[in-house]
Amino acid sequence: MFEVIYLLEMIGVIAFAFSGMIAARAKNMDPVGIYTIAFITALGGGTLRDLIMDNHPLYWIRHEEQPILILALAVAYSYLRPLSRLRESNIIVPDAIGLGIFTMLGAQLALELGHSFFIASLLGVMTGTFGGLLRDTLCNEVPFIFRKDQVYASVAFAGCWLSFLVDYLFHQTEIALAAGVVAIVVLRLLAVRFDIRLQRDQPEPR
Amino acid sequence: MFEVIYLLEMIGVIAFAFSGMIAARAKNMDPVGIYTIAFITALGGGTLRDLIMDNHPLYWIRHEEQPILILALAVAYSYLRPLSRLRESNIIVPDAIGLGIFTMLGAQLALELGHSFFIASLLGVMTGTFGGLLRDTLCNEVPFIFRKDQVYASVAFAGCWLSFLVDYLFHQTEIALAAGVVAIVVLRLLAVRFDIRLQRDQPEPR
Amino acid sequence: MFEVIYLLEMIGVIAFAFSGMIAARAKNMDPVGIYTIAFITALGGGTLRDLIMDNHPLYWIRHEEQPILILALAVAYSYLRPLSRLRESNIIVPDAIGLGIFTMLGAQLALELGHSFFIASLLGVMTGTFGGLLRDTLCNEVPFIFRKDQVYASVAFAGCWLSFLVDYLFHQTEIALAAGVVAIVVLRLLAVRFDIRLQRDQPEPR
Repeated sequence: MFEVIYLLEMIGVIAFAFSGMIAARAKNMDPVGIYTIAFITALGGGTLRDLIMDNHPLYWIRHEEQPILILALAVAYSYLRPLSRLRESNIIVPDAIGLGIFTMLGAQLALELGHSFFIASLLGVMTGTFGGLLRDTLCNEVPFIFRKDQVYASVAFAGCWLSFLVDYLFHQTEIALAAGVVAIVVLRLLAVRFDIRLQRDQPEPR
Repeated sequence: MFEVIYLLEMIGVIAFAFSGMIAARAKNMDPVGIYTIAFITALGGGTLRDLIMDNHPLYWIRHEEQPILILALAVAYSYLRPLSRLRESNIIVPDAIGLGIFTMLGAQLALELGHSFFIASLLGVMTGTFGGLLRDTLCNEVPFIFRKDQVYASVAFAGCWLSFLVDYLFHQTEIALAAGVVAIVVLRLLAVRFDIRLQRDQPEPR
Repeated sequence: MFEVIYLLEMIGVIAFAFSGMIAARAKNMDPVGIYTIAFITALGGGTLRDLIMDNHPLYWIRHEEQPILILALAVAYSYLRPLSRLRESNIIVPDAIGLGIFTMLGAQLALELGHSFFIASLLGVMTGTFGGLLRDTLCNEVPFIFRKDQVYASVAFAGCWLSFLVDYLFHQTEIALAAGVVAIVVLRLLAVRFDIRLQRDQPEPR
């Protein structure tokens, strides 16, 4: 079980790192900028989660193979041509997996520390989305939360509550976690596929 | 006493949440964006304060009714027409109350934890203003601290020192706190009414 | 030894405070904005370091003479004409000293708390560069990490590893620290003098 979680987590870290590097490359950053954005995108959510819950040492300090892996990816991405051809569209699936895993692990940790379902769902969503928020704030003219993109945070929120419901009904933490992750991944991919949004963009009133 | 503080604190949270939602609406954000900005504006100052002073669990984790209330406000604001007609000018008074309450509670907590007057006044000002700083950084083209608005942080700073002086003279913590809050609210409203600034905006040199 | 470190640290704080005030002045901020940016630039790196490593009370809370000194500098800079004539070019040397000192003290603290060399080098670089990153994010249209400036973070990273090597070879912590600081200062000044970059700016593809 732990190995499966760790493997999925690694997929999430790698996917988020790539989404950061692609955004940094689009802004024409140098290799240090690319590593910075990759690091922040992949590990920012977990850092916020651990700081808010006073969970020390931080996740990436306990698992230093993750910042090292991101450094290796950033060097490879900066200097190897094939990797640098990756586009945002290539990482939609791993990004959705990352969102699902990070969200559910954040929520799960909050529950273990004795917090309520509502607080756990908030912390889950923060864990899953904060890295991307920082990436977009640092890399885009139009920050992420300004855009009416396909549902993202809402999907993470819904997945948390589905997972809590499954846990309440069947008292099986592993199955509940898995259900949450699967729900988030599936809902996110459906949202991208069918362009599901909470609200449409309108021309800004002036 | 505690009930009065809690009531005033609630007024501050609600006022700051509305100021966040109004700013988010002006940027045409969807309901998730509106909740995000409302949450950050209302709870950002207290989060910074608690992280800096290592005061765990964080304020809004201990009082989860506050993020729940903000969620309800964000849903109502997104879908109920009358609420969405609120303008910045409707919340000047509650915003001033929020500034006064948050600043003095932040300073008070710092004193209780044994910090000096100067550190307490800094932490008070941070608690009172950080939420608004984040709101403006995320929502405005021109962040808050770039503008030469009517005095805001300075008023909070002055209120802290007035309160410390009252406490030193009369040894009545409650009265000192109240004096600080009243001073900040009154000075802030006077500053808005009479357009008091530290410096005037000049055309930026190019 | 401690006095020498403290003296150098003060030089770093003052240099970073001035770099913040010069940037804030260029944006035509009022005295509160100037103090805010000076504070964030000079103390932001240490704050991030202490939060990440759960090292409480924070550096500037233990050394409150530092925020007080920055306040005095901000008042002087706002109202005394000669100080306000300082330009970015006047602080290249003290800024390099600040980078060297802050980086090595951050790395050193991480090692003392039992972290690995890699984590220590990351935390060192974060301590040395985070204040400037915040300054540029808040003050510039083009954030720092977007620009392909002369090597800055890379120099801090290299200095950390040189220092670890010296410590490993000679088992003299003080000498290793000094070697790291000197290396960072010298490399940084050489990078500015000879315009050394990781990559050149190209016109952004559209």
